[in-house]
Amino acid sequence: MAPESDPIHEDELRDAWPVLAPRDRVEGFRLLPPSSADDFFLSLSTHDQAGLLQALPPGERRQWMRVLPPDDAADVIQRLPTEEHGAFLALLDDTSRREVLVLLAYSEDAAGGLMNPRFVRVRPELDVDEALGYLRRQAREQVETIYSAYVLDSAQHLLGVVSLRQLFQAAPGKAVRDIMRTDLVTVREEAHQEGLSHLFAEHGLSAIPVVDAQGRMKGIVTVDDIVSVVQEEATEDIQKVGGMEALDAPYFEVGFFAMVRKRAGWLLVLFVSEMLTATAMSKYQDEIARAVVLSLFVPLIISSGGNSGSQATTLIIRSLALTEVRLRDWWRVLRRELLSGMVLGAVLGTVGFMRITLWQHLFHSYGEHAGRVAVTVGLSVLGVVTWGTLSGAMLPFILRRLGFDPASASAPFVATLVDVSGLVIYFTTAELILRGTLL
Amino acid sequence: MAPESDPIHEDELRDAWPVLAPRDRVEGFRLLPPSSADDFFLSLSTHDQAGLLQALPPGERRQWMRVLPPDDAADVIQRLPTEEHGAFLALLDDTSRREVLVLLAYSEDAAGGLMNPRFVRVRPELDVDEALGYLRRQAREQVETIYSAYVLDSAQHLLGVVSLRQLFQAAPGKAVRDIMRTDLVTVREEAHQEGLSHLFAEHGLSAIPVVDAQGRMKGIVTVDDIVSVVQEEATEDIQKVGGMEALDAPYFEVGFFAMVRKRAGWLLVLFVSEMLTATAMSKYQDEIARAVVLSLFVPLIISSGGNSGSQATTLIIRSLALTEVRLRDWWRVLRRELLSGMVLGAVLGTVGFMRITLWQHLFHSYGEHAGRVAVTVGLSVLGVVTWGTLSGAMLPFILRRLGFDPASASAPFVATLVDVSGLVIYFTTAELILRGTLL
Repeated sequence: MAPESDPIHEDELRDAWPVLAPRDRVEGFRLLPPSSADDFFLSLSTHDQAGLLQALPPGERRQWMRVLPPDDAADVIQRLPTEEHGAFLALLDDTSRREVLVLLAYSEDAAGGLMNPRFVRVRPELDVDEALGYLRRQAREQVETIYSAYVLDSAQHLLGVVSLRQLFQAAPGKAVRDIMRTDLVTVREEAHQEGLSHLFAEHGLSAIPVVDAQGRMKGIVTVDDIVSVVQEEATEDIQKVGGMEALDAPYFEVGFFAMVRKRAGWLLVLFVSEMLTATAMSKYQDEIARAVVLSLFVPLIISSGGNSGSQATTLIIRSLALTEVRLRDWWRVLRRELLSGMVLGAVLGTVGFMRITLWQHLFHSYGEHAGRVAVTVGLSVLGVVTWGTLSGAMLPFILRRLGFDPASASAPFVATLVDVSGLVIYFTTAELILRGTLL
Repeated sequence: MAPESDPIHEDELRDAWPVLAPRDRVEGFRLLPPSSADDFFLSLSTHDQAGLLQALPPGERRQWMRVLPPDDAADVIQRLPTEEHGAFLALLDDTSRREVLVLLAYSEDAAGGLMNPRFVRVRPELDVDEALGYLRRQAREQVETIYSAYVLDSAQHLLGVVSLRQLFQAAPGKAVRDIMRTDLVTVREEAHQEGLSHLFAEHGLSAIPVVDAQGRMKGIVTVDDIVSVVQEEATEDIQKVGGMEALDAPYFEVGFFAMVRKRAGWLLVLFVSEMLTATAMSKYQDEIARAVVLSLFVPLIISSGGNSGSQATTLIIRSLALTEVRLRDWWRVLRRELLSGMVLGAVLGTVGFMRITLWQHLFHSYGEHAGRVAVTVGLSVLGVVTWGTLSGAMLPFILRRLGFDPASASAPFVATLVDVSGLVIYFTTAELILRGTLL
């Protein structure tokens, strides 16, 4: 099952790849037997293909640029500095260059930017044997797949699709028109890749045709291109949930300062907004001076709001991304999360109340008014968790409604938002319950 | 491009599906024209297929169970209550039932549980025309794909693969043995589905053969099954990062109490460990009583540690999941994150220092020792952010090393861990800098 020459080389190189410097990558790549170098190059990520091409001497680039199908070539060129685009485009043959220029006009995240313009077209009046013969000839061409043939009229409008398998099954004399499927899933060229990945997941398709506003077919997106899209989108969402800008590249390949910049932005926003807690706390300075015991539970109170808020927000962000929950469901979510928050808050509040009561019983930690302190903390936790859950769940809807990406309602952002309101809830509760005793 | 009868029905039902009760789903499903009912049923998620089958009267179940390929039938049965497995297995024909029973023996997350045992086998000595004729006959069978034929010896060992496209291109008299590819990517039947999705993403493959320890072929996994796996795995990771157990089902389909249970578990763990902050704070009760101003910055300090920690942990969890970073890279990550943490901490600490200095200048908010308070807060933020970043980045490695899932080093968990140490860092710094003045 291993190739005849240099059997493990490709895998060795693949294993070492992430830690190799650009120079060593070139060296290792040149040591590959010609039979596996193509495959290896094609299996690299766009990011690595672009890096390798840049590291290769100009004379060796042409061969590898021409190995790439037009959609991948366009992706690679998009990754290179703008001033080098011309030089790399010049390495392609005329047909490919024209195709790549068309693809470069699409945004990278759009269906048009992912599609391969080389697909098999057949006319509806062909019969099954003619179509099979035509597919057989196409097998040698650089089309993405010969297993689906798209039926177009003379103006390139998409009429239907016929699979090689259907042609194999059909009676030889039948016309393509009579066996083609017409209930097609198609996407518009400007559709975002995230929606595209849902279509693949929902319908279990292997290729989706891309059409323009007039229904003219422009290319196909195949499912193997989508697996990496799905992973990229998930990574972006996870990074945003974790409170940073999406990195767009593997950890070790992002430069130190670029990485720090992407992380510092959000942290600064959060830090500055968190300064409001100092302002809020200073309003309650007198209460704290009179009852230092109150300050002991500040971290507990605000973190329980933060944790429940980030939990709710993460849940809703992902459900929105997977379209399990839609914008119009906000009212159902609100009712459900209000109830969830109250139940969760009651559970945590009870635990908090019992902890203080128990410690007081065992160690006399909290002075003569410990009972009232315990009630204050318990009720505050109930309020803060309910409020944290509710606002964490609603923020993604609000952001989506305003046209922002809900994933940017990152968990730490919700936590910060909830911290300030948590302090207000806590000290207001304390004033109500401890007035005349501790306060 | 719409089917002839009832053109929008399938899409209408699909749109309404998430909000329909089981009864209404059955009713809607029965209203579909027979031509689209099959497609619709096959396009449902496993969870919904199982639900629909349960809601249908027993007499109508057989037809739909038999529409499912064996891998999907096995998935559906796995979702049903154990006591109903026998009844649903009995609906299958003998061959399918045997295949499904084999698949049920695999864990749901293993390659063996995802594979379809129906693939096209050819013998190496066939010539191209014989192989094409054979594939053409297979087109009518219930095999997953006819576009890849797997070359097996008489003991079912996998020797190579030949694509329909290669057969089309090859000279008719050649033997399959001479045109097959032998440098195959294969997976073992017990391999976890997460690794499998990386193989698809890395190699851009459309199908991967599954083999046992002796190299005998058991089935194939196709890329369209993997898109949903990738999304599931990402969802699980995002939910764990957000601090809850993975839900395994869409938001609205998880019962209220099941949902609360899954969320309460983690929140309780966090709440109880966060109680350590109250213990830590009580150690510094005297300091707070003497200098109430110190308590004002407690939320700011601990949240900056929590935010930087959850950022770092999210980043590393995702990089580990995508194998961009491996366990053995921990030392490089440690050095890099230590430096990142110090830079981020210096930036935030400076902002904190300036904020206090400015407020003192404008509002005289912090008393005669405001300068020292500003230094205390600035240095504490530096320390807490460095520590938060470092421990957030290292925790996933430690968990992975101990055999746990790094995603369970969820951001809120790190935040809680960092909160307690953040308090110690803050009050220790305060003692050093304010001793003799405020303290």
